[in-house]
Amino acid sequence: MQRPAGASSARDALRRAASGIALIDHHAHSVLRTGPDRAGFEDAMTEAHERPPAPATAFDSQLGFALRRHCAPVLGLEPFAPAQAYLARRAELGAAEATRRLLAASGIGLVLLDHGYAAERLLTPAEFTTVTGVPTRPVVRLEAVAEEAFEASRDAHELVRAIDARLEAASATATAWKTIAAYRTGLALDPAPPGDGEVRAAAADWIATGDRRLRHPVLVRHLIWWALSRGGALQVHTGFGDPDLLLADANPLHLQPLIARATSTGSRIALLHCHPFEREAAFLCHAFGHVVMDVGLAVPHLGAQAPGSIRQALGLAPLHAVLFSTDAWGLPELYLLGSRLWRDAIVDVLGAHVEAGEWTLDDAVRVIGMIGRGNAERTYGLSTEGERP
Amino acid sequence: MQRPAGASSARDALRRAASGIALIDHHAHSVLRTGPDRAGFEDAMTEAHERPPAPATAFDSQLGFALRRHCAPVLGLEPFAPAQAYLARRAELGAAEATRRLLAASGIGLVLLDHGYAAERLLTPAEFTTVTGVPTRPVVRLEAVAEEAFEASRDAHELVRAIDARLEAASATATAWKTIAAYRTGLALDPAPPGDGEVRAAAADWIATGDRRLRHPVLVRHLIWWALSRGGALQVHTGFGDPDLLLADANPLHLQPLIARATSTGSRIALLHCHPFEREAAFLCHAFGHVVMDVGLAVPHLGAQAPGSIRQALGLAPLHAVLFSTDAWGLPELYLLGSRLWRDAIVDVLGAHVEAGEWTLDDAVRVIGMIGRGNAERTYGLSTEGERP
Amino acid sequence: MQRPAGASSARDALRRAASGIALIDHHAHSVLRTGPDRAGFEDAMTEAHERPPAPATAFDSQLGFALRRHCAPVLGLEPFAPAQAYLARRAELGAAEATRRLLAASGIGLVLLDHGYAAERLLTPAEFTTVTGVPTRPVVRLEAVAEEAFEASRDAHELVRAIDARLEAASATATAWKTIAAYRTGLALDPAPPGDGEVRAAAADWIATGDRRLRHPVLVRHLIWWALSRGGALQVHTGFGDPDLLLADANPLHLQPLIARATSTGSRIALLHCHPFEREAAFLCHAFGHVVMDVGLAVPHLGAQAPGSIRQALGLAPLHAVLFSTDAWGLPELYLLGSRLWRDAIVDVLGAHVEAGEWTLDDAVRVIGMIGRGNAERTYGLSTEGERP
Repeated sequence: MQRPAGASSARDALRRAASGIALIDHHAHSVLRTGPDRAGFEDAMTEAHERPPAPATAFDSQLGFALRRHCAPVLGLEPFAPAQAYLARRAELGAAEATRRLLAASGIGLVLLDHGYAAERLLTPAEFTTVTGVPTRPVVRLEAVAEEAFEASRDAHELVRAIDARLEAASATATAWKTIAAYRTGLALDPAPPGDGEVRAAAADWIATGDRRLRHPVLVRHLIWWALSRGGALQVHTGFGDPDLLLADANPLHLQPLIARATSTGSRIALLHCHPFEREAAFLCHAFGHVVMDVGLAVPHLGAQAPGSIRQALGLAPLHAVLFSTDAWGLPELYLLGSRLWRDAIVDVLGAHVEAGEWTLDDAVRVIGMIGRGNAERTYGLSTEGERP
Repeated sequence: MQRPAGASSARDALRRAASGIALIDHHAHSVLRTGPDRAGFEDAMTEAHERPPAPATAFDSQLGFALRRHCAPVLGLEPFAPAQAYLARRAELGAAEATRRLLAASGIGLVLLDHGYAAERLLTPAEFTTVTGVPTRPVVRLEAVAEEAFEASRDAHELVRAIDARLEAASATATAWKTIAAYRTGLALDPAPPGDGEVRAAAADWIATGDRRLRHPVLVRHLIWWALSRGGALQVHTGFGDPDLLLADANPLHLQPLIARATSTGSRIALLHCHPFEREAAFLCHAFGHVVMDVGLAVPHLGAQAPGSIRQALGLAPLHAVLFSTDAWGLPELYLLGSRLWRDAIVDVLGAHVEAGEWTLDDAVRVIGMIGRGNAERTYGLSTEGERP
Repeated sequence: MQRPAGASSARDALRRAASGIALIDHHAHSVLRTGPDRAGFEDAMTEAHERPPAPATAFDSQLGFALRRHCAPVLGLEPFAPAQAYLARRAELGAAEATRRLLAASGIGLVLLDHGYAAERLLTPAEFTTVTGVPTRPVVRLEAVAEEAFEASRDAHELVRAIDARLEAASATATAWKTIAAYRTGLALDPAPPGDGEVRAAAADWIATGDRRLRHPVLVRHLIWWALSRGGALQVHTGFGDPDLLLADANPLHLQPLIARATSTGSRIALLHCHPFEREAAFLCHAFGHVVMDVGLAVPHLGAQAPGSIRQALGLAPLHAVLFSTDAWGLPELYLLGSRLWRDAIVDVLGAHVEAGEWTLDDAVRVIGMIGRGNAERTYGLSTEGERP
C-alpha cells in the first residue's frame, strides 16, 4: 500500500524521517582537546597545509558559509553570525560545552572512531563519550598498529611478529579495520597477498630506512590481507584528503583487482569519502556485493553543494551499499555539519524522486533509515545496546 | 519562425514529440528464452556476479524502483506493485506475453541487435521479431566471430584465414561491428593496425593457450582495424559493465589515439554506454566528427537519476553525435525502462533549456528526433523500409 | 547584518551584481582580422579539426544555440535568428562593428591576452583595444618564446641563452606566463627543475629534429621552472581543447607533484579551463593555497549546461581561488557568450544557495565580485588604472 504524497507533505515526511534517526557515523575521529585559536580553527576547517595569503580566509568557502549557517544557532547566535563573533562565542562557552551542544544537535547515536591520527591532540574515546554522551566503537588504523610495532622491534623477524601480535590483540575489540594506503603507497597496489618471505624482506627494508612512517607497499598489502583474511570489515580511505596524498592515486578504481580477489574472504570493504570519484565507487558497490561506500568527508566541504555528491552515490550503488559518515576530525562543528547537511541533502535528493512520482514515499523513508543506520548495522554486525537512546 | 512556449505547454509539446518517435535502439540484445525465477530475474537486473547477502535485494536500487514504477502498469498492476506481486503476475502472463507488452509499450521501432553474448539463453533475432513485432538489424560482435573461427581451426595460418573469411561473410549483412575490447584487453590498445606477421604470431599464441576466450591484444586490434578499414560503423563498449572489466581500463579516453588514426578511414565509431565517463565521451564526439555516443546502459540503472547522465552527454557533444540505445539484455523490462526513462529524461533536460529561454521549442523538438532516430539513420545508413510503422 | 532576501528579489539583486561588474577576463585571445565565411565561422565555433559530414553543422550544438540566443540581439536581430541570417547580418555590419558591439555587450573591462597562437590571423593587442575599447595585458606563452628563439639559434648553447634572454626581456611586461604543455608533452611531467646540462642536451636534441614545434619535456620543464622561479603567475592549459591534445594527459591531477614542489617559490599557478576535470582542479585549489582555476572554455561550449561546470568548481575550491575567463579565440561572439553565460550561471548557482537559506545574499554578492574581478586582481597583482571605466 502506498501513502498518498502531495509535494510538500512528502518533503515534510522525509524531513521527519531524516531528523528522527539516531545516525550511525561509521567513520569519524575525536575532537581537539583544547579550543583552537582562530588560526588553528581555520587550519582544521581545510585539508590544506598552507594558509591562504590574507585577506583570504578559510571561512570564504562552502564549508565556512555552512558553518556560519548551521553551527552559529547551536551556540546561541543568529544564523550566519560573522566568523569573529562565532569564535568569540565559542571561546566564551568553552570547548567542552561547544562540543556537547554540537554533538547533541547532530543527532548522532554512535560513532565508529578512528583514533589513530594525531591522537595526542584529541580527546580519548572515553573522554569523547563523557563530554558528548555519544558512545564509540573502535576502528583500528592498520598502519598505526604497524608503526607502534616498529618502535618496539629491533629486527625484521621481531617486527613482523610484533605487527601480527598487535593486530591479533586489537581484533578482540576492533569493530572495523582501516587502511590509509592512499596516503602511503597509493591505491594501485598489487592485489595479491604477499608471501611470508616478501613480508620479512620488506620489514628489513623498513627498518633500514630508520623512518617510522610506513610506506612499504608489501607491508601495506600484508596489513590489508591480514584484515581481509579475518572476514570483518575493512575501511579504505579513497578520494580527497590532505595534500599528503596524490588524488590520482586515491581513485577507488585502483582497488578493483584487490576487491575482486577479496570476494571469497567473506569480508566487507568500505570505501570512505570517495569524492570526486563517487560514481566510480558506486560502480564498485554495484559490481561487488561486499563493497559499501560513503561520501562523508565531501558533505561538509561541499556545503550547499552536498546534494550533488549524494546524488552521484545514489546512482549505480545498490541502496543497501551506501552508508553515513561525517569523517569529522578535530572540530565538533564537523559532526554537526556532516549530519545536518546530510539530512538536508538526502531529503532534497529523495524528495525530488518522490515528487516526480519515481519513488514512493515509503521506499524513500525506508532508504533514509538504511543509509542512516541499517546498512551500517549490517556491515559491521552492530548490536544497538549501550547506545544513546 | 519560433513557436511561443509557455512553461507547461513547452513540456507538453516535448512530451508529445518524445512519445511520438518510433525509436531506433542502436544497441541492444535479445531477451531470455524462458521466464526466469526470482533469483534469475534479480541476476539479470544487475551487472554484479554475486548476489548481495539477504535481506538485500536487487529490487532495492534505482533500477528496481523504476521497474516497479514503470513496468508494473504495463503488466496490468498498480505502479510500484511489490516485487513478489510483479513476478507472480509476470509468470501468470508468461514470458512471451510480458515481452510483447513491454516492447509494445516501449515504442521502439527498430533494434540493432548484438546476438553474440550468451545467445543460447536468448530468443533468436527472428523469434524476437515474431514475439515483439520489432524488426532487428545485426550488430556483429568481432570477438565472437574470431572465437567461432578458433574452434574450427588447427593452426595459426588457418585461424587468421578463417577469421577474415568469417568477417567477410558477416559483412554482407552486418549493420555495424562491435568490439568488447574493454572486457578482454582494456581500451588502452596500441592504436596502429598490426602487421600480418604480428597477427599470425598472435594467432599461434592464442592457439597455444587452448582457451577459446580471445584476449590477445594484437588479434583484438586486427579485428578492430578490419572493421575500420571497411568504412562502416564500429561500436565500442566503454564505461561500466559487469565486473569482468576493469572500469579504469574502459574509459573511452584510452581510445583517443585510435580514434585519431581512424579519421581517414571514413568509418564511424560509436562509443556505447560510457557511464561514468559521459563527459569524456562527449569530448571525443566534439573533437572528432566520426565519433558518436550513447548513454544507454546507464539510463535504466540510474533510474530517477537518468537525467544527470543525459545532461552530461548533451554538453560538449555535438547534437548530431548523440544516439539512443537501451543496451537491454535478457529482460524485456530493460527495453521499456531504457525507452521510458530516456523519454522522460530528455523532456526534463531539454524542457529546462526551453523554459529558461536558452533553446527554442522547435530546436528541442528537432533534437529529440535526431537523438531518437535521425542520428542513428545517418550513422548506420539505415533506410526505414520493413520497420514497424 | 543580513539583508532580508525574498526568492525573486535575491535573484534580482544577484543579477544586478553580476551585470554591474567590469569583468577581468584573465585568459583570452584576440579576434580574427578578417570576417570569416560560413565555413571559417563554423570552424572557429568548435575545437574539432574536421568538419562534420553535412547536413550536420556546428550550429547544432549547445554553443550554436547559445550564440543564436545571445549574440543575435546584439547585432540587432531577434533572439534565435537562423544561422544564415546571423551570418548575413554580421557581414553587413562588418567584422569591426560586430566585434565592437559584442565586446561592449560583454561588459568585460580588461583582458589578459595570450597572443602566442596563430597571431598572424588575429588583430594585434593594440588593434584589439582600438576596435573594442578594452585594454589588455600580456600573457606570454612560454613555448612560443622558445620557438622564436629556435629560429634565431644555430646551436644548443646559443638556443638556451636565447630562450633565457627572450624570457628575461618578456618579463618586463608580462602579467602572466602560460604553458601549453598539455599540447606538447602532456601534464605528467617530471616535477623537478631540470639541470643545466640536461637543458643543453635537450636543446641539442630539439635542433637535431629540425622541427620548430617544441615537444621536448626537459625544455618544457625548463620554461615552467624559469617562470615559477620568478614568483609570478603561471597559467597552465588543462582539460579539453582541440584534438592535438590527449585529454587523459591534460587532467590537472598530473600536475599535483609539480604544484607541491612549487609551493616554496611564491608563485601562483592558474589552472585554465579544466573541463571535465573541474572537481579535480577544485581539489588542487583546496589543497594548495597558490593554485587558482577557471572554467572559461567550458562555459560557451556547454551553453545552457554551463551552470553544471561552475557548480563543480564552486565545491571544494576556496572562493578566493576561482577566476573568470572566456578563453575566447577568433570570434568576438565567444567573449559575449563567455561573459553572458557566466553571469547567468553564477546567478543561477548562487541564487539557489541563497533561496535555500544556505548562503546570505551579501556573501553571494561579494563572491560574484571576487570571481569576476577581485581574485584576478590579487592573483596577478593588477592595478586598475587605464581600464575602461
